Amino acid sequence: MNSPDMPQNRRIVLASRPSGAPTLANFRLERVPVPRAGAGQVLLKTLWLSLDPYMRGRMSAAPSYAPPVAVGDVMVGGTVARVEQSGIEGYRPGDIVLSYGGWQDYAVSDGTDLMVLPAGMSHLSRALGVLGMPGFTAWYGLLKIGAPKAGETVVVAAASGPVGAVVGQLARLHGATVVGVAGGPEKCRRVREELGFDACLDHRAPDFAAQLAAACPRGIDVYFESVGGKVFDAVLPLLNTFARIPVCGLIAHYNDSVYDGGVNTDPGPDRLPAFMGQILIRRLRVQGFIILEHYSEFYAEFLHDMQPLVESGKIRVFEDIVDGLENAPAAFIGMLEGKNSGKLLVKVSS
Amino acid sequence: MNSPDMPQNRRIVLASRPSGAPTLANFRLERVPVPRAGAGQVLLKTLWLSLDPYMRGRMSAAPSYAPPVAVGDVMVGGTVARVEQSGIEGYRPGDIVLSYGGWQDYAVSDGTDLMVLPAGMSHLSRALGVLGMPGFTAWYGLLKIGAPKAGETVVVAAASGPVGAVVGQLARLHGATVVGVAGGPEKCRRVREELGFDACLDHRAPDFAAQLAAACPRGIDVYFESVGGKVFDAVLPLLNTFARIPVCGLIAHYNDSVYDGGVNTDPGPDRLPAFMGQILIRRLRVQGFIILEHYSEFYAEFLHDMQPLVESGKIRVFEDIVDGLENAPAAFIGMLEGKNSGKLLVKVSS
Repeated sequence: MNSPDMPQNRRIVLASRPSGAPTLANFRLERVPVPRAGAGQVLLKTLWLSLDPYMRGRMSAAPSYAPPVAVGDVMVGGTVARVEQSGIEGYRPGDIVLSYGGWQDYAVSDGTDLMVLPAGMSHLSRALGVLGMPGFTAWYGLLKIGAPKAGETVVVAAASGPVGAVVGQLARLHGATVVGVAGGPEKCRRVREELGFDACLDHRAPDFAAQLAAACPRGIDVYFESVGGKVFDAVLPLLNTFARIPVCGLIAHYNDSVYDGGVNTDPGPDRLPAFMGQILIRRLRVQGFIILEHYSEFYAEFLHDMQPLVESGKIRVFEDIVDGLENAPAAFIGMLEGKNSGKLLVKVSS
Repeated sequence: MNSPDMPQNRRIVLASRPSGAPTLANFRLERVPVPRAGAGQVLLKTLWLSLDPYMRGRMSAAPSYAPPVAVGDVMVGGTVARVEQSGIEGYRPGDIVLSYGGWQDYAVSDGTDLMVLPAGMSHLSRALGVLGMPGFTAWYGLLKIGAPKAGETVVVAAASGPVGAVVGQLARLHGATVVGVAGGPEKCRRVREELGFDACLDHRAPDFAAQLAAACPRGIDVYFESVGGKVFDAVLPLLNTFARIPVCGLIAHYNDSVYDGGVNTDPGPDRLPAFMGQILIRRLRVQGFIILEHYSEFYAEFLHDMQPLVESGKIRVFEDIVDGLENAPAAFIGMLEGKNSGKLLVKVSS
């Protein structure tokens, strides 16, 4: 029994696995006593929670690159948190850390997933966005796989999102012509006017494929793939010889049954043999990557590159901020539907 | 009018474009006077003609990486030839050259496609095989894209062919476990016993996919793709995280209508979205290449690596020799049907 004035930890657990698109019924808000940190542990109070498309994968039991969240367990997620109580030398109450505490008010960590953020960092949420996982995804995929040269054409899916926005701006800084793709005229306007892309097209337009062809008169040299679906379909015939396709996500397919280990029901014709033919004839390079695997080798180089660009305003980002942990499930569902514009963050505590 | 005793050039021209598999009716043997070499030209007499799968692509008008052969023109192809008459300084009658004279007894060259072979080279045909384009394709694709590490598993399609045989032997020299795939028990036996692959499976076996899974208990790290079709289908579920797929050919599909610019009639389901999902989840790298583009950068390194391996017998190859230019069309058609085993060569003259 908890007394009403005992500090409580609100946490959002996976109530059931989704079949197709997640619904609110797949999540459950629980209240439990705030845990205590033992020796070799710290207690963290969540300030910011990051919501990201990869979390859809963790809700499924199908084999993937990371283990699924068990039903009844707290949803995983990156957080910025404050150390409340420390049993680890080197961490003091009041330290602000980047952590992986998940969808809850408080979390206990053994320190292995923590990074102390600089004291006085002005925009803590950036550690979850442009200077965190999404920004690093953009930087690594574009520069280490896509490697655009000046004068080439780069197409970026989900251009207003936290990855796409950085991909496009970085590509422009490298001298490429950048065509973004986003959902709806308002997102497209912001991508063009506020992020400086050469063009941004609405994938909901009935003539989207024709618009994309017109916007890429010299073909496409790099397609930064995070979406799949009809954006990929429209890109495919425009790929130039030696085009590179870094693949960091396929949000249009995360609710497909094959992602849950089910049967493939995509109607024919089967385009896979013809795609392999295009890979050969056009000497394409298609490469998937999971950014978590590249932190040890490249994160320091990324920060060294990116921090000055962000501080000088050469790279801008949008943030979508949702107030209150209890609103995380609805915000996450909306993100999978393409409703947000920019990095989606939950302000859990100030 | 040619007098009957005037030296004649027999040449095989593209009579018509094939629809699906080529037939003898797509070729025509013509007899014309032997051409003469002018200033800046040499006249070559063909000794050996190489027959290779890529030639199927040149018979089609559909866009590809190289222009099609025009109807009525001589079929293209690599040759070993003897200089008969020279109008280019540096070439003397009697020199043996690697050239691109095509399917004919005599050819005229401006010298840009010639490489003089060392005097006294004992196996001239090797310049078209293990030390030529097929061997270079194997070396480049395996080492520069596939990059197998010791202990990894490499699967090689068309394992008895001139590319696959070299891929597998090179991979074993790099410490990999090598599983070949070939058509028929006799080819498989030779690949195992004479080329030393760890295993070789017959793709015609009804339980081929199950056999492949059993032969690759630790999954597949490199799949050297030159075939497509059901070999690729059986490989796909076995690919390990970070697997690499160099794609140098897709012989099973060369007669498909999409390769001729036609409509895709492959029955569903459409496996392309799920394949992109696997590229992401397993961080695959799929990369097409056309070996002609890598000669200037890598051919010397290849020869330096490969010549000692061939001369010491560490790399062995099979040759399938057909006597007489007039038999080239039937031999080529048979190759596309998987009838030959080893590098297919036409002995045009001795």
